[in-house]
This record gives sequence, structure tokens and C-alpha cells, in this order.
Amino acid sequence: MRTQVAIIGAGPAGMLLSHLLAAEGVESVVVETRTEDYVASRIRAGILEQSSVDLLHAAGLGERLAREGDQHRGIHLQWPEERHHLDFVDLTGRSVWVYGQTEVQKDLVAARTAGGQEVHYGVSGTALHDLESDSPSVTFTSADGAPTRVTASVVVGCDGSFGPSRASVPDTIRQTWEKVYPYSWLGILADVAPSTDELIYAWHPDGFAMHSMRSETVSRLYLQVPNGTDLDDWSDDRIWSSLATRLGHGQDGWTLTPGPITERSVLPMRSFVQTPMRHGRMFLAGDAAHIVPPTGAKGLNLAVADVGLLAPALVDLVRNDDSRLADAYSDTALRRVWRCTHFSWWMTTMLHTSGDEFDQQLQLSQLRWVATSEAGATGLAENYAGLPIGF
Amino acid sequence: MRTQVAIIGAGPAGMLLSHLLAAEGVESVVVETRTEDYVASRIRAGILEQSSVDLLHAAGLGERLAREGDQHRGIHLQWPEERHHLDFVDLTGRSVWVYGQTEVQKDLVAARTAGGQEVHYGVSGTALHDLESDSPSVTFTSADGAPTRVTASVVVGCDGSFGPSRASVPDTIRQTWEKVYPYSWLGILADVAPSTDELIYAWHPDGFAMHSMRSETVSRLYLQVPNGTDLDDWSDDRIWSSLATRLGHGQDGWTLTPGPITERSVLPMRSFVQTPMRHGRMFLAGDAAHIVPPTGAKGLNLAVADVGLLAPALVDLVRNDDSRLADAYSDTALRRVWRCTHFSWWMTTMLHTSGDEFDQQLQLSQLRWVATSEAGATGLAENYAGLPIGF
Repeated sequence: MRTQVAIIGAGPAGMLLSHLLAAEGVESVVVETRTEDYVASRIRAGILEQSSVDLLHAAGLGERLAREGDQHRGIHLQWPEERHHLDFVDLTGRSVWVYGQTEVQKDLVAARTAGGQEVHYGVSGTALHDLESDSPSVTFTSADGAPTRVTASVVVGCDGSFGPSRASVPDTIRQTWEKVYPYSWLGILADVAPSTDELIYAWHPDGFAMHSMRSETVSRLYLQVPNGTDLDDWSDDRIWSSLATRLGHGQDGWTLTPGPITERSVLPMRSFVQTPMRHGRMFLAGDAAHIVPPTGAKGLNLAVADVGLLAPALVDLVRNDDSRLADAYSDTALRRVWRCTHFSWWMTTMLHTSGDEFDQQLQLSQLRWVATSEAGATGLAENYAGLPIGF
Repeated sequence: MRTQVAIIGAGPAGMLLSHLLAAEGVESVVVETRTEDYVASRIRAGILEQSSVDLLHAAGLGERLAREGDQHRGIHLQWPEERHHLDFVDLTGRSVWVYGQTEVQKDLVAARTAGGQEVHYGVSGTALHDLESDSPSVTFTSADGAPTRVTASVVVGCDGSFGPSRASVPDTIRQTWEKVYPYSWLGILADVAPSTDELIYAWHPDGFAMHSMRSETVSRLYLQVPNGTDLDDWSDDRIWSSLATRLGHGQDGWTLTPGPITERSVLPMRSFVQTPMRHGRMFLAGDAAHIVPPTGAKGLNLAVADVGLLAPALVDLVRNDDSRLADAYSDTALRRVWRCTHFSWWMTTMLHTSGDEFDQQLQLSQLRWVATSEAGATGLAENYAGLPIGF
């Protein structure tokens, strides 16, 4: 079959791209190795920055977000005996929204289904071809076993770090940077009202902890744990008591309310960037080009920002034969990618204990400065609440 | 002999302390292992922050500084193809002064000589005694070979990292933190007019370089070099050509003018903090309690800030028997010490190449952010131009 844009990956990046392209009359086909249910239900990010929310609204995808999303003015930054609220709205005029990636995905799927989008779920053997020609193609075996080829003007890899797209750039061209952190997150979802109005990022000698949320009745919490941690070693009691200690239960009368844990997992943490984000007629967006540790809540937002840049570039390219934005895409996107990569690394290394006592004192001095200096707080806020797309 | 305050070390910290104490009628004796000529001529820091200048003026030591010092509004921050001026005055209302430590020392010695200060130079075998009693003492052999004891109400260690004061705190009480950096500075003094109006801090793939100055006719320049570098491997030509490359000679028409090198040395870089900064009747100030790498120009300024806090505390203690400021000294001083230790580490690790390619991209992203975000620039400026003493 033939289409204008072949999109590999039906996660938020791929589905949002198909939506933005369709709004400008550009046709696309999406292929995805996972099932629709799997993609819809996987637990990932939960915080949308200002630019992402603006873009979703502009794309007509903001109705439920406006109704059910929870706008936060900032975050709480904490270390033993101290909790400071950083008010992003006061500091930068921008805010963030609690609205889970699963909800964004539902809205996207609903919109694309209504729009008649062709999505092939459950495919296997996806391969990219002729990327340096004017008619690149994607081949795969469909869910019902049929060998299929989609030929297009452009192929976009929205298939994450382990998909075939980024690996299809020749080794002589692509450059990669990677950093693996010496700790992981043990994350839980719990059926209990959050014990906080806005997210708590807590430094503690035992390790980082974070109190996030999904809704008024569902809490999301994280603990720094060593790499290779076995979930079997973490009973519910141990999880809740570690969270209570690190989050400061009892400090200034604050209490952490435990509840039934409905999901738990251990997430390794790494930073990864592959450049360039374009090779011939193939473009990369989201996790296919870059992975950040979750500490700064940048992963999903960076994917949205990539797509927000790429969609108009592809419209110009395939509809108007104007390649200027497409030619600029990789460099423009990478400015934000490196900014967010740096910010995520900075938040991560400020908040996670490494076992080095000198580093621990540096972290505490930095936390005190960030929480008490307007410049320090604004620096965190403008990165966390996010720069405008295409900055 | 007996005095009110026995000061070990006749560098800027010790001499400034004796001056501030004398102004309040508190008598001191200073002992120093080096000769007066050695102390007067050793090449050290060259930048005074706002608070240091304010304190020197308030102490009546600012006349020559006002006349011969060079007020700088900020610094130039640079990486290949980019040079950005950060204007501290615009950003924070504060500035810095180029005025060498040798000049500060001359002013202090002149003032103390006029004030009849007793200073014993060239002593040996300095030892501290009875620090937990009300009459601690210092013993030494004077330059002419006489065993001497100075008994005092208070002993102050201004004798740097290798002096006996900090080591006189029992191991069971003192805690130390140290970080040694994997690079050194090759520093030169040259008889040539500076090629820049204000300091240039340059990141370069070959390593950090810096263009500072001492006067209109004397330049001070630095190159990042590996630890263990032998000066014999660095001819004048190699030094100047490396400086030209790293500082961007030829970029946007800027040129570096070489000149005769009059002094050269290799400086290892480390961070070091010892706590507490008080033990019984012994107080530590300056390098005796903390060492910073030179990148943020904090060493001398931190010593001045310590002394600015300690002098009124000792006046209250020995003249009024009021120990409140003395009891608070260590905690109050350490807030600034850790702030400056963090800032110096931050400037150092942002600007020096480590050989890690991921770190290199983080550094460049951070430099771009610091140079273009008002919050980023203000954060650097407020730390560099310096917080008020006792903040």
C-alpha cells in the first residue's frame, strides 16, 4: 500500500503525529508491534508541561484534559527537616498538569479512530527500506500473518529505543551518547488519595523518594533502589515504611497514608541520545532518539515537543515540497533534547544518593540554594514547566 | 607572653582578623612559619567579590583598592564559536574587583605595621595546647631560636590546609570531606596588556582556559592540564599557542597578544572541608577549614567572609564574655562554605573536560542555558559576585 507518511509506533508520539498530519490533510499509516490493549494500558509518565498542554489543546485534544487533568502550580522540594514549595506560576508564569500518559493515549486513540486512521497493531518483523530514496518503505507481517509493505514519501520512527528505526541509520552516520545511573526506581500505583496536593521530590540519606499521583483516588510513589533490585524483597510494609521515612512522615505534622498497591515495577534509569534525528527520508521522534531518566518528567513532554516540530515540517515537505523545516528539524529538536537531557541529569544527580559523602554535602547545599534563591528556583521552574516548543 | 587572641598564620585571613580585632580594642599576636617576604610575594587569588570589597572599605583598608583595583561588571563565558558576556551588575546589582591577593596582603601589612601589630615570622615547631580550657596557648621556636609560648583567651587557626591548627582537633570530633579533581591548572603571569576587558572563562575540547589579569600591563592566564604535568614539557610557544586555540584567537576578529612569561606553575585542584570550624577555644578560618578549586574565585573571598563573621564573635567573647556569636560561628560560616564549595565544584565541572563524551554534551547544554537564560545567568552571577557576609 502507499501513503504519504509511514509512522512506526502507535504510542503518544506516533499517534499525535498522525493526528497533527491529518489535521493538515496529510495521510499516514501507523504500524505497531504491540497490541492496542498493551499500548493503551502501559504505565508511563504522568506530568504534562505547559507546552504539551498548549499543543494538545491547539490540536483539539484538550477537552478531557481540561476537565480531568489537575493543574499544579509547582512542586515540593524536600530534605530532612525541610520542605519548600516552588511555585512555577509565580516564578515563570507557567504550570504543569497531572494527566497520565494512559489518558493522553486514550484521547489520541479516540480521536484517531474517529478520524479513520489506519493503524496496524500486533505486527512483526518491521523493517525499513530505501530511506535515502524518495520512496522509502516499511515492511512487516501483519497480525493475521500477511506480509505487507507500506511505501511512503517519509518514514517516521516513533518506536522507542528498542524499535528498528534508530538502528536503521548506518553506523557511519549515527552517533550515540549514553549514561546508565547506578540506581533504579521502585514505582507503585496505590488506590489511596494522595497525601499531598502537589508532587513531593524528597532527598533522603536512605535514597530519593517521590510522591506523585494520578487522580484524587490514585497515588503514584517511587523509591530509589539499587540496580538489580528484586521486587520480591520489597513487601508492601517495607515499601510504605520506606516511603514514610524518606518522605518525612511525622515531620511538621505531615502524614503519609498507605493503601492497596495495584501495580509495582522496578525502572532502571539511563540517559541516551542518538544523532542526527533524521536520515534521508526517515525522521526520529521521542524515545527512538532519546531517553531521559524520569526525575524531571521530561520523557513524554520531549516526545510531544519533537512531534510539535516535526508535523509542520512534514506537512511542508510532502504537501508543498518545501524542505526547509525538515532540514532544520534535527538541529532544532536536539537543542531541546540536550537541554532536557541536562536538566533530567541535574535533577537526578541532585536528588539520588550515590554513597559519596562529599556529593551528599554538595546535594544538600544545592537543594538549599535552589529552594531559597529566586534564581535557583526559577532555573528549576523554567526547565520543569518547560520551554516553548521550537525555543 | 599573654594576649587576648593568638592567631596562627599571617596571610590575608590572619592579618585581616588582627586588624578587625584591633579596631575594636582586642589585642592579638600573630605567628607565621614563613618569612614576611615569602608571604608578601606568593601569587594567589586575584578577584575580590562585592562583600570582600565592602568589608575592606569598612575596615579602612580600601584606599589603594579603590584607586588601583579594576571593577568588573561580569565575565565572558565562552565555548567554540560563542562568547557571551554575563553582566553581574545588570543581573544582581553586584560586581567584582580585580585586585591581587599580593596587593591585599601589602595593604594589610602596612596597616598592621602602622598599628603596632606583633607578628612573629619565620617561627618553627608551632603547636597548640589546652584548646578546651579557658587559657589555650601556642608554642613555637622564634626565628632567632627562642622557645616561646603565647597564652590567650582564644586561638585562631588561619594557617591553611597544611598548618597545625586543623589537625589539632581530635579525630573523634572532626569530620573531613575531600574531592581531588582529575586535572590541574598551568598558570602564568605575563608582562603584556590583557587581551580582554574582563575575564574569559573558556570551555574547549582541548580543555579549559582562562584569561585573567593583574593590571593594565600584567596578564594572568591558565590552561587545564593533566595532573602530574611537568612544566618542562610546556615551552612558552606551546603555552601561548594552546591559550590562543582554547581562547578563540581569530574568532570574530579577537586576538590574543602573547608576551614575556614572568611566573609559571602547576596548581592541583581539590575541594576540602573540615567541620566543625571551632573546637573549644580554637577557631578555624580560611584555608585551614576549607579549600576550593580556583575556578569560581572563591578561596580568598571565603577567607575574608569567615573573618568578617569571626571578628565580631571574638570581640563579644573576649571583651564582653558573650559567647552567642562564637557559638553560632561554625554553623553560620559553614552555610557559606558549602555554598561556595558547591559553586566552585559546579563551575569547575562545567568548564573542565573529563574525556567523557556524554559529560561534554551536558557541559555544552549547560553553558548554552547559563548564557541565554536569565535565571541561569543570574544563578552564576549571584554566586560569583558573592552573597552578603552572614547570609
